[in-house]
Amino acid sequence: MQFRGQYHADLDRVWGLLFDLAELARSAMVLAATALADADLALAERVIADDALLDARRRELEELVFTVLATQQPVAGDLRLLTAALPAGAGLERMGDLAAHIARAARLRYPDNAVPPQLRDTIARMGDVAAGLAGDLVTAIKTRDAELAATVPAGDDAMDALHRKMFTILLAPSRDRRVETAIDISLLGRFHERFADQAVGVARRIYFILTARHPDTHRDG
Amino acid sequence: MQFRGQYHADLDRVWGLLFDLAELARSAMVLAATALADADLALAERVIADDALLDARRRELEELVFTVLATQQPVAGDLRLLTAALPAGAGLERMGDLAAHIARAARLRYPDNAVPPQLRDTIARMGDVAAGLAGDLVTAIKTRDAELAATVPAGDDAMDALHRKMFTILLAPSRDRRVETAIDISLLGRFHERFADQAVGVARRIYFILTARHPDTHRDG
Repeated sequence: MQFRGQYHADLDRVWGLLFDLAELARSAMVLAATALADADLALAERVIADDALLDARRRELEELVFTVLATQQPVAGDLRLLTAALPAGAGLERMGDLAAHIARAARLRYPDNAVPPQLRDTIARMGDVAAGLAGDLVTAIKTRDAELAATVPAGDDAMDALHRKMFTILLAPSRDRRVETAIDISLLGRFHERFADQAVGVARRIYFILTARHPDTHRDG
Repeated sequence: MQFRGQYHADLDRVWGLLFDLAELARSAMVLAATALADADLALAERVIADDALLDARRRELEELVFTVLATQQPVAGDLRLLTAALPAGAGLERMGDLAAHIARAARLRYPDNAVPPQLRDTIARMGDVAAGLAGDLVTAIKTRDAELAATVPAGDDAMDALHRKMFTILLAPSRDRRVETAIDISLLGRFHERFADQAVGVARRIYFILTARHPDTHRDG
C-alpha cells in the first residue's frame, strides 16, 4: 500500500509540476507584456531572471517521469500522463523562454519603448491573448478540464489575426520606417505567435492525457 | 524469446525513426537553402510538401514508444532511449518545420530573391552550418557516437556569430533599407538560428541516451 501510495503521490506531483510550469509561463507573459508596454527595465530583468525557475521545474518533471517509469509499470491513463507530460513540460518551458525574449527586447531599447506608438495597441493585444491562452492552460490543468483545453486553438486564431494586422501596420506608410523598428517588431511578433503556438501544442497534450483522443485538427506548431 | 526479440526490434526501430527524422531534417535544410539562394520555386514547394513526412514519422515514433512502455518494463539505457526519443523526435520535427519556413520565405518573394545581394553570402553560410549540424546528428544517431553529438554546440556558436554578422550587415547604410527586407531577413535569421538551437537540443538528448550523462553546459534553446 505504501508503494502504491507513493505511486499516486508521484502522479499527482506530475500534475502539480505541469500546473507550476503553466502558472510560471502565464506570469512571465503578463509581466513581459507590461515591461514592453511601459519600458520597465526592472520588470524585464525579473522576467529574464525568473526563467530559470521554469527550467528547474521542467528538469524536475523529467526526472520524476523517468523514475516512475523505471520503478512502476504504468498503463493506460497513467502512462498517457507520464509520456505526454514530457512534451507538455517542454512546451511550457519554451513559453517561458519566449516571454523572456520579449522582456529582452524591452531591455534592449530601454529607456526607449521598443514598440512605436502606432503598433502599441496591437502588440498589447497580442500580449493579452498570449497571457489568456496560458491562463486557460493553468485552469485546464488545475481542474483537468479537457473541454477548456480544446478551446485553446481558437485563441491562437485570434493571435494569428493580430499578427497579420501587425505586419499591415508595420508596412504602412509612416514616419517611422526604420530598419531597427522592423527588426524589433518582426521578432516580437514572432515571439508572441510562437508562445500561442506552443500553448496550442500543450493544450493538445492535456486533451490527450484526459481523453485518450487527439483533438480534431493538426496544426503546425 | 519471440517476445524479447520483438522488444529489441522495437528499440532498433526507435533508433531507425530518429535516424529517418534527422535525415529528413537535414535534407529539408539543404534543399531550403538552395531554394532560397536560387529563388527556386519548385524546390521550395517540395520542401514545404515533404514536411508532412517528418510529422508522420514523429507520430509513428510516439506511438511506438507508448506501445513499448505499455507492454514492456524497460530500465536503464532502454528507458533512457524511450523517454529521450520523444523530445529528440519533437526537436527533429521542429527542424523540418523551420526548413519549411525558410522555403516559404523563398516562395513568398518568388520570382525575386528574398535575400538582397549584400546578405547572400552570410545567409548561405548560415544554411551550410544548419545543414552541417543536422548531418552531424544523422551520423551520431547512425553510429551511436556520443562524442560526435557532444561537438554540435560548437557548431551552434558558429551560427550565432553568423547571426550577429547578419544584423550588422542589415543595419549598415545601404541602398536597400526597405522595411520588407528587414522583416524577411530578421525572420530568416531567426529560422536558421532556431534550427541550430534545436539541433543542439537533439544532440544533448542523443548524448544522454548514449552516456546517461547530461552534457556540461546548459544552453537556452
